[in-house]
Amino acid sequence: MEEGKTAVGIDLGGTKAIIALVGEDGEVRFSRRIEVGDKPSPEEITAMLSDGVKGVLGEAGMTAEQVAGFGVGAAGEIMQDEGILTYSPNFDWHDVPLADMLQKSTGLKAVLENDVNAGAYGEWLFGAGRGTRNLVAIFPGTGIGGGFVFDGKLYSGSAGFAAEIGHIIFRFGGEMCGCGRRGHFEAYAGGAGIAARFQAAVESGRMTSLLTRLGGQPKNVKATDIYSAALEGDTLCSELWNDAEEALKTLALNLAVALDPDVIVFGGGIVDNAPDIIGPIADFVKKNSLDGVASHIRIVRAELGENAVAIGAAALGGGFGADKTERM
Amino acid sequence: MEEGKTAVGIDLGGTKAIIALVGEDGEVRFSRRIEVGDKPSPEEITAMLSDGVKGVLGEAGMTAEQVAGFGVGAAGEIMQDEGILTYSPNFDWHDVPLADMLQKSTGLKAVLENDVNAGAYGEWLFGAGRGTRNLVAIFPGTGIGGGFVFDGKLYSGSAGFAAEIGHIIFRFGGEMCGCGRRGHFEAYAGGAGIAARFQAAVESGRMTSLLTRLGGQPKNVKATDIYSAALEGDTLCSELWNDAEEALKTLALNLAVALDPDVIVFGGGIVDNAPDIIGPIADFVKKNSLDGVASHIRIVRAELGENAVAIGAAALGGGFGADKTERM
Repeated sequence: MEEGKTAVGIDLGGTKAIIALVGEDGEVRFSRRIEVGDKPSPEEITAMLSDGVKGVLGEAGMTAEQVAGFGVGAAGEIMQDEGILTYSPNFDWHDVPLADMLQKSTGLKAVLENDVNAGAYGEWLFGAGRGTRNLVAIFPGTGIGGGFVFDGKLYSGSAGFAAEIGHIIFRFGGEMCGCGRRGHFEAYAGGAGIAARFQAAVESGRMTSLLTRLGGQPKNVKATDIYSAALEGDTLCSELWNDAEEALKTLALNLAVALDPDVIVFGGGIVDNAPDIIGPIADFVKKNSLDGVASHIRIVRAELGENAVAIGAAALGGGFGADKTERM
Repeated sequence: MEEGKTAVGIDLGGTKAIIALVGEDGEVRFSRRIEVGDKPSPEEITAMLSDGVKGVLGEAGMTAEQVAGFGVGAAGEIMQDEGILTYSPNFDWHDVPLADMLQKSTGLKAVLENDVNAGAYGEWLFGAGRGTRNLVAIFPGTGIGGGFVFDGKLYSGSAGFAAEIGHIIFRFGGEMCGCGRRGHFEAYAGGAGIAARFQAAVESGRMTSLLTRLGGQPKNVKATDIYSAALEGDTLCSELWNDAEEALKTLALNLAVALDPDVIVFGGGIVDNAPDIIGPIADFVKKNSLDGVASHIRIVRAELGENAVAIGAAALGGGFGADKTERM
């Protein structure tokens, strides 16, 4: 058996879950990745995740009693204190007491947190934000998730909904967002939003070289296709990508000046596929922030990759990093 | 002598200062208001404020040793830990060690804080935000100041610049702000910004009924004049005021969804002169926030009036409210 404390962390996404046994040094000791299938029920997910937890504990030769804690980062709206997933857009679940269900089947008391919040905490403790006091995470993927660590503590807000930065306004009265409201950052710089704008433009008759490659079906488009076509000079795709970049610059600048963090960490699928976007965003923030913010802020790429959420969830469940917080 | 702890708080504004002896119940026991004159030197301000402190202590029959602390809320950029006013736009000061200067002349160790941050803390502890955990303050006056209390602690950011919400972007590439950058909320909804937009519109030939009342001099306009003319149906003034309202709605919504606070407290000159603006802003936030935020958030007017900054500064200096924070 390895030295030091360990905790179990889960990243429960829309299509896959990662179950990891994580050391208090942030290293993943053992992990499993499972496909969750199409619209699983809460009972099905509980069974799959519990099997996974037992699997990684078995590989480590450990019992549930030997781990320091258990954390779950799940996409959706969370009530942390109650351990309830109040809304999962991926699974169309409402008010699922996931922490209780997992505790019954694994014997481990589970801490439930929003996935990007957990990822932000992981990056703060072990990744691109280690050693800092205040961190902002911006994760543009299908949507745009966010996470805040203030004074070494994950900030969840009064009802657990803090850092829903995809659903704040970039352009008042602008594009319709997937949530049914207008002008949100997610509608301009989230993968689904970029694809929806492309589709609407094609349907309204706009020309684009990308349509040929998609076999004439604008519904098949992905944000990465639009990025590639923009790089090749396609006018429509360049417009859409410029808007996405303008949105991410504005979002980063606004969070920098409003929150004066040490570091803004960018992750998520959009950044993974277009990592060159970080440079222009960082330049924009440095140039357009108040001097007192610009002089110290760092804008960097996330470091923990696809394990960030599972690592952060394990850290939250195991109480890793709490000693750092107390010294702040 | 009164019962309980007291602390001295100062609100150092651009034209006047308020010096108050404040009880740990938030009540102002004695206070003085002084005019600071045109561009006073740091030495002149120190002498004026010290005289004021000695004055209120004298009225209370107290010595410096008998107060629990001393706090100063000053407009401008502050390094809290060092007690330095790094930039005062009102006085055109740079890097003034105001806390040290005041300590030498009063014998009281001074806590220095940004004025709106201090006001936000006062509203959290004794005003419209009392009993809450997380508070956002939005104060549109000449500019737009902000303040955040998270988990019962004033949040100042990594370098002390947090909550500079006037200088975040409302419209990318939009109107020039007083700070020399474009598109900021302050340029659309701060008093100076609204007046500058009016002046520019008149100079570019726009017609307005308000110009006659101003004796043909658009430079004399105040935001309150524009508000009155908008209410009377003047087209230009209605456009400008609608933009200001749209900006304040967006700012409140964005801070509500990003930070999920219990309460957003609006104060400042714009709100004092146009208190009816709170209703539409609150409606907009309730209607356009994520349900989990909309279900609990309150949007209210500040309660402490012109003493908010002095009361909050005294509370910060005296350590009032720290026991509440520990229980959170």
